[in-house]
Amino acid sequence: MKTIELPQIKRLLASVDLIPIIAEGFAAYSAGKAVIPPVGELLLEQGEVHIKYGFIKNDEFYVIKIASGFFNNLKLGLPTSNGLMLLFSQRTGELLGILLDQGYLTSIRTAVAGAIVAKHLAPRKVERIGIVGAGTQARAQLIYLKTVVDCKQVLVWGQNESELAKYRADVEKEGFRIETTLKADQVLESCNLVVTATPSTQPLLHVESLHPGVHITAMGSDTPPKQELDSAILARADLIVADSISQCRSRGEIFKALSSGQITEDRVVELGRIISREAPGRTSDSQITVADLTGVATQDVQIATAVYRKSLET
Amino acid sequence: MKTIELPQIKRLLASVDLIPIIAEGFAAYSAGKAVIPPVGELLLEQGEVHIKYGFIKNDEFYVIKIASGFFNNLKLGLPTSNGLMLLFSQRTGELLGILLDQGYLTSIRTAVAGAIVAKHLAPRKVERIGIVGAGTQARAQLIYLKTVVDCKQVLVWGQNESELAKYRADVEKEGFRIETTLKADQVLESCNLVVTATPSTQPLLHVESLHPGVHITAMGSDTPPKQELDSAILARADLIVADSISQCRSRGEIFKALSSGQITEDRVVELGRIISREAPGRTSDSQITVADLTGVATQDVQIATAVYRKSLET
Repeated sequence: MKTIELPQIKRLLASVDLIPIIAEGFAAYSAGKAVIPPVGELLLEQGEVHIKYGFIKNDEFYVIKIASGFFNNLKLGLPTSNGLMLLFSQRTGELLGILLDQGYLTSIRTAVAGAIVAKHLAPRKVERIGIVGAGTQARAQLIYLKTVVDCKQVLVWGQNESELAKYRADVEKEGFRIETTLKADQVLESCNLVVTATPSTQPLLHVESLHPGVHITAMGSDTPPKQELDSAILARADLIVADSISQCRSRGEIFKALSSGQITEDRVVELGRIISREAPGRTSDSQITVADLTGVATQDVQIATAVYRKSLET
Repeated sequence: MKTIELPQIKRLLASVDLIPIIAEGFAAYSAGKAVIPPVGELLLEQGEVHIKYGFIKNDEFYVIKIASGFFNNLKLGLPTSNGLMLLFSQRTGELLGILLDQGYLTSIRTAVAGAIVAKHLAPRKVERIGIVGAGTQARAQLIYLKTVVDCKQVLVWGQNESELAKYRADVEKEGFRIETTLKADQVLESCNLVVTATPSTQPLLHVESLHPGVHITAMGSDTPPKQELDSAILARADLIVADSISQCRSRGEIFKALSSGQITEDRVVELGRIISREAPGRTSDSQITVADLTGVATQDVQIATAVYRKSLET
């Protein structure tokens, strides 16, 4: 049994191309080749814990991922996100790997999902990337977008100038030209590839700012109370994509839009079907597309497997 | 963060009295002081995995336990049961302890639950203990019964003479006088404290062998297909006890008896209420009592907490 600590995980991943690996996970999921039970959830006074787990049939491993968010940790000088992944043998149940990633792999596989979505749904020419949120995931999303989108102009929304200044300082090093705003709808108005990455429980982007040709990836809302998009945006979209239709029935933007009757489930297409070309992605530059990512355990299975396999090579 | 391996876990537990600790867990559970989400389950071609998790409110920790059963492992010379427990801070979500117990703590907390049940439900004078099953848990149950029941006469049922011979050799060292049988109902006929500890999916004990004054603890059946007791036994019992009524609605003996209409849920009393004296246990020597244990995460929370706290002392 291997215990792999965070610095080693980062070193191992440096030479792995995660985009095809995670994309394969989404495709396997949508093709019914993955076993993914409902997400386990523990709600505590100070935080929330998610247990995501499953396996791809006829593969070697199953993976159990524990990820937590404790938002008061900021005041204690501790990271708000935390977690680990456990990798077991499908044949014997033996624990083969403990990946002490402290939530890092969740952050990376989520950012990679954003890049995969952009690959299939972003307009051909991205004029300006919009990022709603200025936290860890808002950074990671942008960095992974570099690999699939050729645009360096970015408008970022944050809650205050100080977090925006920090964001700008961190991300400009990666070669982006960052402008900032305190009005979230300005991001939607002026960008044609928008990613939302906040824990908001109130819509931040409204239908009045929507325009033809935009793609929005909403990845912040992963629990029933969270919401980043006015549901009318989904109602107006030409294409609504979910990472997991079954999860989106009970959490995320699609859940909100279904609950309020703004959309019906037959309008939602699963990402894995677009990846495997069973369903079309964006078919014209004027379409409005929305992808709702709630996080699927096959992403965790695939990234944990990639780290573990890489660790065996070295 | 501490990683505690199995030999150290065994050493630490040697000086811990688990009976009051686990009993407190059941009482907290039944008093609504515990948060225990539904059991997570992963069914693979070669085995099954259970994820049990939760916490006692206003305590320090939450615990996530992974336990697996891979029954073909026997052929591979590997243990069939495996697992680990993870202990986190309720305040910050930090991972504090990895208990690499390989399923040992599950075995012990299950055996301790059997002893707690016997304490409250066994007849005053146990004439002969009956054990149905000759595996790991069938050994552990008997060993923990020693601490609460003053009887050394035991009749054990197993599938064949060779497993029974091994069982006898192992357990006679503990001071028991072991007789064996290949007829399970003989155990029920001739003993007044019976524990079933098999993965059977067919009833092993039948109502024809039932007699006044017997107590039966059924702890083998913890998934929907498993069953050790003819449901008519539950129908005839004066007292039916569940470790968790909500779990017993969907797994175990009570689930089977409810499904077949042999009992109604209002007849089932939760163990924690008997422990905290809100409900009576056995009130006469002639009563027939049945306890159905499916395993509750508060047992895991309590035993993991006990090991971790003990590790801080040393």
